[in-house]
Order: sequence, then C-alpha cells, then structure tokens
Amino acid sequence: MSIVSRLLSVADLDDAATADAHCDLMCGVYNPAQARIEAESVLETMKKYNASDDDYFKTRCIIIKEERAQLAKEHLWVLWTDYFKPPHVEQFPQLHDLFWRATKAAGDAKKSNDEADAQKLLDLIDEIAEIFAETKK
Amino acid sequence: MSIVSRLLSVADLDDAATADAHCDLMCGVYNPAQARIEAESVLETMKKYNASDDDYFKTRCIIIKEERAQLAKEHLWVLWTDYFKPPHVEQFPQLHDLFWRATKAAGDAKKSNDEADAQKLLDLIDEIAEIFAETKK
Amino acid sequence: MSIVSRLLSVADLDDAATADAHCDLMCGVYNPAQARIEAESVLETMKKYNASDDDYFKTRCIIIKEERAQLAKEHLWVLWTDYFKPPHVEQFPQLHDLFWRATKAAGDAKKSNDEADAQKLLDLIDEIAEIFAETKK
Amino acid sequence: MSIVSRLLSVADLDDAATADAHCDLMCGVYNPAQARIEAESVLETMKKYNASDDDYFKTRCIIIKEERAQLAKEHLWVLWTDYFKPPHVEQFPQLHDLFWRATKAAGDAKKSNDEADAQKLLDLIDEIAEIFAETKK
Amino acid sequence: MSIVSRLLSVADLDDAATADAHCDLMCGVYNPAQARIEAESVLETMKKYNASDDDYFKTRCIIIKEERAQLAKEHLWVLWTDYFKPPHVEQFPQLHDLFWRATKAAGDAKKSNDEADAQKLLDLIDEIAEIFAETKK
Amino acid sequence: MSIVSRLLSVADLDDAATADAHCDLMCGVYNPAQARIEAESVLETMKKYNASDDDYFKTRCIIIKEERAQLAKEHLWVLWTDYFKPPHVEQFPQLHDLFWRATKAAGDAKKSNDEADAQKLLDLIDEIAEIFAETKK
Repeated sequence: MSIVSRLLSVADLDDAATADAHCDLMCGVYNPAQARIEAESVLETMKKYNASDDDYFKTRCIIIKEERAQLAKEHLWVLWTDYFKPPHVEQFPQLHDLFWRATKAAGDAKKSNDEADAQKLLDLIDEIAEIFAETKK
Repeated sequence: MSIVSRLLSVADLDDAATADAHCDLMCGVYNPAQARIEAESVLETMKKYNASDDDYFKTRCIIIKEERAQLAKEHLWVLWTDYFKPPHVEQFPQLHDLFWRATKAAGDAKKSNDEADAQKLLDLIDEIAEIFAETKK
Repeated sequence: MSIVSRLLSVADLDDAATADAHCDLMCGVYNPAQARIEAESVLETMKKYNASDDDYFKTRCIIIKEERAQLAKEHLWVLWTDYFKPPHVEQFPQLHDLFWRATKAAGDAKKSNDEADAQKLLDLIDEIAEIFAETKK
Repeated sequence: MSIVSRLLSVADLDDAATADAHCDLMCGVYNPAQARIEAESVLETMKKYNASDDDYFKTRCIIIKEERAQLAKEHLWVLWTDYFKPPHVEQFPQLHDLFWRATKAAGDAKKSNDEADAQKLLDLIDEIAEIFAETKK
Repeated sequence: MSIVSRLLSVADLDDAATADAHCDLMCGVYNPAQARIEAESVLETMKKYNASDDDYFKTRCIIIKEERAQLAKEHLWVLWTDYFKPPHVEQFPQLHDLFWRATKAAGDAKKSNDEADAQKLLDLIDEIAEIFAETKK
Repeated sequence: MSIVSRLLSVADLDDAATADAHCDLMCGVYNPAQARIEAESVLETMKKYNASDDDYFKTRCIIIKEERAQLAKEHLWVLWTDYFKPPHVEQFPQLHDLFWRATKAAGDAKKSNDEADAQKLLDLIDEIAEIFAETKK
C-alpha cells in the first residue's frame, strides 16, 4: 500500500464517524491515530537528538520531546477513560494493564533517548489500535 | 475498504515517517489527520446540539465545539507554517488561500450550528490532505 | 474512618516527601488532595447551579465545572500512571478499575448537575486516597 | 507549630467547604495546599538536579521546575485575588506584601537551584496558610 | 493624534526595550498594553452580549469573556510580581492595593455584563500604565 | 517622541476600539502589538543567551524563547485568519505571503540565537502593523 493511499485513507474517516454516532458519547469521535502521531514525533525527535552534537539543538529536542510525549499520554488517557466501556473490558481483560503500560511507556520516553523506548510506546499504541478496531467491527 | 482496514492503516504510518526523515524539520511528523479528527468532532457536536432540546446539554456542546474548532484551526496553522516550503507554494499556488479559507471555516464553525459549515471545513481539510499527499509522492 | 480524618491523612505531606525521596520518580511529590480539591469545586459549583435561577450565572457554572472536573480527571490520571508501580497493583488488584471508575465519574460530573454524581467522584477519590496512604506506611 | 501540624490544618477541607458555602464566591473552594504541593515539587526537583551529573536529566529538571514554580505562582495569585476580601486585609495588613514576596520567591526558585530558595518559598506559603487558617476560625 | 499614529507608535517600542535592557529581568519586556488589549475585548464582548437576543451567540460571549478576563488578570499578575521592585513600592505605596483591585475587577467583569464593570477594569489598568510609565522616566 | 508618551499612547486605544466596532467580529479587538511584544521578548532573550556563559541560565533562555516565539506565532495566526477579510487581501495582495514569512520567522527564531533572526521577525511584524494601520484609516 503506497504512502499516498495511506495518507488519503487517514483523511477519509467518514464511515468511522458514522459508526461512532451510535455511541452515547459527547461527540463520538475517537481515534488512536492522535496518540500515534505524537509518539512518532517522540521517536523522530530522539533520532535527531542522537544524531546531533549541537548542545543548543539537543536542548530544544528535550523540550519538544517532553511536550509530545505528554500529548501522547493525554490522548491515551482520554481514549481509556472516555471511549472504552465496561463490555469492552469484559471482552479485552488486558485493556487496563495495556493502557497503564502504554502511558508509563510515554513517561519512559521522556526519561530516555533510547529509540527502543519510543518504539515500545508505538508498539503499545498499535496494540491498543487493534483492540479499538475490533470494537468498531 | 472496511472501517477496520482504514483504522489500522491510520496506525501504520511508519513509511510516512521514514519519508519525512529526509526533510529539515524538527521532528518531521505532520499529518492532516490531526485537523481532520477535530473537525469531525465539530460536525458530530453540531449534530448532537441540533438533535437536543436540553439547555444544559446544548451549553456543553457550545463549550466543546469552541475547543475542538480551535484545535482544528491550530493544527491547520502549524501545517501551513511549519510543513509547507516555498517550492510547495510554487507548485500549488492556491495553498495560502486554501489554508486561509480553511482556518476561517473553522472560525465559522464556532459561530454556527449549521452542519454545512462543519462539512465545508471538512471538505477544505480534505483538499489540503490531497495536496499534502501529492507532496509526499 | 471519617472523611475529615481521611483528608487529614491525605495531607500529611512532610513524611510522604521524605519517603518519596527514595523512589525513582522525577520529583517524587504526589498527593490525592489535588484531585480532591478540584472535585470539591465540582460539587460546590453544582450546588450553586442548582440553587440559582439566573441563566447567565448558570452558564458560568457549566463552564467552570467543565474545567474543574477536567482538572480532577488529569490529577487522577497522573497519580495512576506516574505514582503507582507494579507491586502496588499486585497488592491492590482493584487499582486499575478504581481509577477507571473515578475518571469516568469525573466525566459524569461534567454531564450532570446531580450532586450525587459529584459525591460519587469524591468517594472514589477517598478510596484512592486510602490506598495511597497504605502505600506510604 | 510544626510543619506537619500546619499542613494538617491546611488540609482540613471538610469544614472549610462548609464555611465557604456562606461566601459569595463562585465555588468557594480554596486551599493553600495547592501551592504547597507544587512548591514541594520545586524543592525535590532542585535536590535531584543538585545530586545528578547527567546533563540530559538536569535539563529535564530545569524544564519541570520551571513548570511547577509557575503553578505555585498561579495558585498563590488566585488565592490572593479571589479568596481574600477587604476585611482580611484590614485584619492582616501584611497580606499584600506577603503574597508579593511569595510569588517573587516562586520566580526566584526558577532562577536558582539553591535549595534555600525553594525552602523560602515553602516558608512563605506556610505563613499564608496560617493566615488562611485564621480566616476560617 | 490619529488612530494610525497611535497604532504605529504601539509597534515602535524599540526605545522602551533599550530602557528595559538595564534591568535585571529575564527578558526585560513588560507592557501594560497586554492587559489593556484583553480588557478591551472584555468590554466589547459585553456590548455584543447586551445588544444581542440570540441565546447561542450570548453563550459564546460568556465563554469568550471568561477567557479574555482571565488573560487580563494573568497579564496584571505577571506585571505586579515580575516587573515591579521594592523601590517602586516605596515610591508608589498604592501599588499592591491597585493591582489587587484591578485583578478583582477582572474577576468582577467575569461575573457581570455591566459595561461599567469592564470600564472600571480599564480605568485601573490605565492607572497602572501611568505608574509604569513613571518608572520608565 | 518620549518613551512615556509612547507608553501612554499604547494604553489609549479607545478610538481604535470604536473603529473596530463597525466590523463583524466577535469582540473586534485586534492589535499587532501583541505579537510585537512577544517578539521583543524573543530578541531580548537571545541577547541574554548570547551574553551569558552560565549553562543553567542559557537553558532557561531556550525554554522561555521557545514559549515567547510560539506566542508571537499564535498572535500572528489569529490576526491573519480572524482580522483580515477578502477586500483586504485584494488591496494588499502580499498579505498571505507576508504572514507566512512572519510565522516562519517566528519558527526560525526558535531554532537560532542569531539576533538578526529575531530582528527579521520584528521587521515583518512592523510591515504587518503598517498594513493593519492602513486598514484602520
């Protein structure tokens, strides 16, 4: 699948929104992509940090990574508390622990510049996205 | 294409990130989906507002729509200023005007509960997403 | 144990800070009182809303309650992800579910002006505060 | 009066809320503990900064201390402007100057890693908490 | 003096910045105009609120006025704590009380749609601006 | 023109507000001075950074400059999207490009400590202020 197709498919969420319209939420629009995009930023910022030897640039990387990791954390918290309902937890008993580890991974990605830590966050978000997709079937 | 495939594809942005790694940006991760998701919220909130006759609920809709429209606006501004470069503007001379109309449409979607206003915002974001995808080819 | 006694134990900060100094956290200062104070605001704002028949004042109550309930939610999320560690979850297996219900209760307190909903949020925060106090022993 | 006893009195929320219910404020919930908790974070972060020789960690300390000191400042400003009333100023003529020095101390705690500066902020917050407690009698 | 001259003079703050360069502040740039502009918004929003009989529009006015009055308050707090120094307070003994009344006036302008309340806030900001100008001589 | 006169004239924006009252905006108060003041902070912070050899102080400069440049950017975006109308763009065809370069200059001022970069931002804001003043005639 080409990058373009994927990018276009990202922008074409109409049916997903229709599906959400049946839930009892405020606006009914949730998407793990929000946390995913911020976590991508965390990984890319780590790469830039590790590839640079300019102190000024590296300090800016730390400031920005701190913000993006925080945003990833916040998008995950909202998804956990607001989107998922008791029947989901029955169907996916690992849900609480998965979100706990994912938000902790976002915290760990603040503390380190080990790209494996950012990758772990991305992997956990992908696990969440798979469960999210299951609940949309 | 099923909802699930689309949702999964949203979460699978790895190649896009690789492509971005060649640019000179801070973290190199941009995605029109961020504005798109907020604009979806704006539309859904309008629908809830229009379908309700509970004053308390309707006031909450206004508060929340104000926030989501603002976030759509901010994601668009960042994309316009930070992602696009002079060669893009040469190739897509409508770019500035398109972003101006899109961010104004986000403002209009605060002022109204006409679902057509939210749809106009979504359509303009889709136009931007198509240009964005072209620049990724 | 009365609410007052429990609140007093929540705020016994001095020793808590000393204890935290041994942990691996950034600053090591956590306190359920932060969520508690915001949740108190939610309850008081509901009371003011329910006692008033001034539309302008009532709209301000909704705006402010929305903010305070959000802050209560955020303080709870931080406590859950950042303070508690795997051994705590082993010792208190209800922890994840308790935080999930508490943050959902903060969301419910946005949706309603039923003072029982704010009281439920306060009760869940008190349950969390008791566990927190246990972990400090 | 020991720090611990003073903190306990600060947090005696239940009666305070009852007392506040008679005032003309929006939600009537104020508590110097909010500024106190952030100022504790400032002190603990300074300690971590001073004990570390890891440049990356130290930069994160600076970022986080900047935020927590700002929050301490904001909680103090709200207390000064919103909680205290003209009769309080008559009874405690030092009030304005005390808050001015306390918020300046929060600013100084951004500028330095001298733990005495954070302790000075904590001491001034405790002075404010004592006056606050007096107004609740 | 024409509007244009005044607008241009607003933008021509270079000498003021030079004057500030002698102080010991972080960046040395302070200007009561920041609070003034937000307070103007408060007044204009009140006028719009009072002239309208559209409930939806009026609710948006309340949301926006709440934000602008808060910003006016915050700009005033920063000016009070960060710009003014002990010798200023000696020279202008009314300073603390003036700021206290100004920030309380910003709070009052949230609570009311009486344009006199917004005007009172503007007048107090102008008093502060005059003292500020005196300190620049 | 003395500093004092300029400072006073900053605070005397009443007629400007009257002029704005004829537009169809929410509160009708816009002023390029908001972006100007933040951009001044950016320049002054760079000067302090360049004059210092204290690592701790320099890190704080970076954090603060990041914030002020972001605020300059946001004030410019709001002015572009919310104040200017299609007839303005017809009269000033350079408007979109000018704002694009100005917001990019704010981004560049985050990336560098070259005072010329901050000066460039200030110059572009002054160009915008002149056009703004023209539209007020």
